[in-house]
Amino acid sequence: MFKKILIANRSEVATRVIRACKELGIKTVAIYSEADVNSLHVKKADEAYMIHGDPVKAYLNYYKIVDIARRAGVDAIHPGYGFLSERPDFAEYCRKKGVEFIGPSVEHLKMFGSKLKAKKVMKELGVPVAEGSDRAVSDIEEAKELAKKIGYPVMIKASHGGGGRGLRVARNEKELVSQFKTAVAEAEAAFGKGEVFIEKYIEEPRHIEIQIIADKNGNVVHLGERDCSMQRRHQKVLEIAPSPVLTKRQREKLGQICVRVAREIGYYGVGTWEFLMDKYGKFYFMEVNPRLQVEHTITEAVTGIDIVQEQIRIAAGMNLSFSQKSVNIYGFAMQFRINAEDVTRDFVPSPGTVTAYYSPGGIGVRIDGVVYKGYKIPPYYDSMIAKLIVWGRNWDEVIRRSRRALDEFVIRGVPTTIPFFKKILNDPEFIHGKFDTSFIDRKIKEFTFIKEPDPEILALALSAAIAAHHGL
Amino acid sequence: MFKKILIANRSEVATRVIRACKELGIKTVAIYSEADVNSLHVKKADEAYMIHGDPVKAYLNYYKIVDIARRAGVDAIHPGYGFLSERPDFAEYCRKKGVEFIGPSVEHLKMFGSKLKAKKVMKELGVPVAEGSDRAVSDIEEAKELAKKIGYPVMIKASHGGGGRGLRVARNEKELVSQFKTAVAEAEAAFGKGEVFIEKYIEEPRHIEIQIIADKNGNVVHLGERDCSMQRRHQKVLEIAPSPVLTKRQREKLGQICVRVAREIGYYGVGTWEFLMDKYGKFYFMEVNPRLQVEHTITEAVTGIDIVQEQIRIAAGMNLSFSQKSVNIYGFAMQFRINAEDVTRDFVPSPGTVTAYYSPGGIGVRIDGVVYKGYKIPPYYDSMIAKLIVWGRNWDEVIRRSRRALDEFVIRGVPTTIPFFKKILNDPEFIHGKFDTSFIDRKIKEFTFIKEPDPEILALALSAAIAAHHGL
Repeated sequence: MFKKILIANRSEVATRVIRACKELGIKTVAIYSEADVNSLHVKKADEAYMIHGDPVKAYLNYYKIVDIARRAGVDAIHPGYGFLSERPDFAEYCRKKGVEFIGPSVEHLKMFGSKLKAKKVMKELGVPVAEGSDRAVSDIEEAKELAKKIGYPVMIKASHGGGGRGLRVARNEKELVSQFKTAVAEAEAAFGKGEVFIEKYIEEPRHIEIQIIADKNGNVVHLGERDCSMQRRHQKVLEIAPSPVLTKRQREKLGQICVRVAREIGYYGVGTWEFLMDKYGKFYFMEVNPRLQVEHTITEAVTGIDIVQEQIRIAAGMNLSFSQKSVNIYGFAMQFRINAEDVTRDFVPSPGTVTAYYSPGGIGVRIDGVVYKGYKIPPYYDSMIAKLIVWGRNWDEVIRRSRRALDEFVIRGVPTTIPFFKKILNDPEFIHGKFDTSFIDRKIKEFTFIKEPDPEILALALSAAIAAHHGL
Repeated sequence: MFKKILIANRSEVATRVIRACKELGIKTVAIYSEADVNSLHVKKADEAYMIHGDPVKAYLNYYKIVDIARRAGVDAIHPGYGFLSERPDFAEYCRKKGVEFIGPSVEHLKMFGSKLKAKKVMKELGVPVAEGSDRAVSDIEEAKELAKKIGYPVMIKASHGGGGRGLRVARNEKELVSQFKTAVAEAEAAFGKGEVFIEKYIEEPRHIEIQIIADKNGNVVHLGERDCSMQRRHQKVLEIAPSPVLTKRQREKLGQICVRVAREIGYYGVGTWEFLMDKYGKFYFMEVNPRLQVEHTITEAVTGIDIVQEQIRIAAGMNLSFSQKSVNIYGFAMQFRINAEDVTRDFVPSPGTVTAYYSPGGIGVRIDGVVYKGYKIPPYYDSMIAKLIVWGRNWDEVIRRSRRALDEFVIRGVPTTIPFFKKILNDPEFIHGKFDTSFIDRKIKEFTFIKEPDPEILALALSAAIAAHHGL
């Protein structure tokens, strides 16, 4: 087993990995930017090294990171998610320098780095995919012809994209002409590669993803699915495991397809196979995330398996600590991404200083948080400051418990997405499990958010009410 | 279902009940003493009423409490644990005044209020009990005769006792003579009733208890056992579910005995049947706790069942939400009672102001805490300020995760039992599951505790170390 691991990431996921390492008896090394001096991951690691300069580039500067790793005598690097986690060049460089990269092979990182290539491989292996172009479409005439053949509506997708950027829908040829240019430009700006392709647009789909976990010794297991249909502008905000609409049979079938192809391509590490499910229950492969995902926690909640510990064990060459037969999905779990965003102002990121912080507790509540009273959220990174994970024996219980936990959650000083989730949890369609990937963008227009009253004024009102009761 | 519940308790258990009520959609009413103005249970309840005067008597003043309940329009009162929770007179008064008491029948509270009576009933129903007197022993000559018949060592037990008071061991007649008097005096002082009885002393026993849950409609289920052998001076400090030494067969057998007798006596509500297990695996009934217990959380962790919600549902006349068949024990859980006590000074309670508080989080960690930065722990009540509950798939995992969670737990300003638990978790005998009720009192002499260095000095040292690394 590894003795010491460097975490090439920050904040929430760095803390997550440190916890796994501590439980495995592995020492941890943190890196941090000048902006992250007061970040919890720095305090929780056994050693921590600052990387000077630009606060974002600090976490992308892989020569420096591997240099620190080697000097600190680490055996392996965990990349977390985001930053360098899907970069084949980084994985290759780590391994060349004698430091294990905790993730899949370089070959698989390359394979899944291109959505187009991934789709091709999966199609060849018999995984259902949406009808579309087999290669990049660089020319509008070619795009028109393809779209006609597939039939509108179609989707224009950046091959190297993610997070909804470089992703456009065209419902007719006129839209195709304008959206094609936008998609290419967006993809180029965001990912440095303007390559796009076209496929059939699936109407009102659900986002269903299968968690795969495979060791280097040929054992491949799936941990069921997550339903990530609750997205705001193609960004996941609330994830659910298992999906409230999948049958056991569908789960098993889809899981087994993913296990089979992962085995056929010799995949190892953790990975997520993402699908769209149409209204008729048909699945279409979208992409593979060859890394740990933000929403891995809900799969942990319903299976009891520590995915990060398994990931580390796998990288060290060990066998999976469980078999497919021993995996049971029990109950339901939801993850709420608590972001420092102002829901009254179109979810604009709102970094600032946290002036009060009380996290919920009690049965079925897990907090993966990185803020504390007095913490100054740096403006350079994504706005997620905590993950609230709630488990319940059944759908009804997880909803009731989530409401309770969100009610208990107090974060002051910065606006957060907590009020938004409270609305969601009281929406009748959501409660009945009726939602697809357009749900939030549609609903958000109906929700009205009011600025919450100042807690000091509330406290005064409460005192007055209590005083009035003293007569009792 | 009830619409509104008053919680006749404070702090941790009051908060626990409020959480259950919120999840059930029930409004909550808190009561509080003058010393508890800043207690979290006051903030979390929908309404809160102060009871003036003595800070302990406030929670025992049941005329006042029921009066508040009626004026606030509540349907039921939850007594928590401690205070009024086992008082048949309180239960009777509540019901007389038209407010449901959330707990068993008055008859059963009376039955289990006397250990002697409880033992007699259980013996008649075929539950294994330790050999001993069938009635109170008031006279030393009678005690001598009995002890001779049973054979030394014997135990002198207060019939109305609890928490180890009025509990004495005698290994010979000489000891009996002196201990008998002490036990009677102690019982009189602590419980107002000097009634004691004598039974065979079980050597090196484990404390094993069965969680029973029964509705008013005849459904009785057990939720497996808890191992509460880790006691300091007869006070539980660390509880485990399931016991690392019980076989599935033993669990089923003991569970079924308890289910049978609970059914035969018509018990309803939650209740715990406590047993001692000797070195040969034989069980001896000790007592029944006819209420929620502090350690109910670990049973929740391994079964997923919210015991407090079930308890409330039962009181409202509803059926259990699950059957015996659907109860599965999954993994292991431990509860650590985080007390404000100074382990370097013989665990003396050390109330004071909490100057820093960071609770652990992440997978498998549950916090039922009631403190926050700035909270002033009142000196009038027991010293428990938080419960840390840790779950793992297996024994090894729960130990590793507990170490991690305790390492993360930061409470400053008052000393706590955290350092003590860290020692326990590194003790080879404990790790191998080898412990009985004398374990802690024996081990505590071996442990050496050092005053932890000032965190400010540590922080400076860390900064210096970080600065030194900047050369990298």
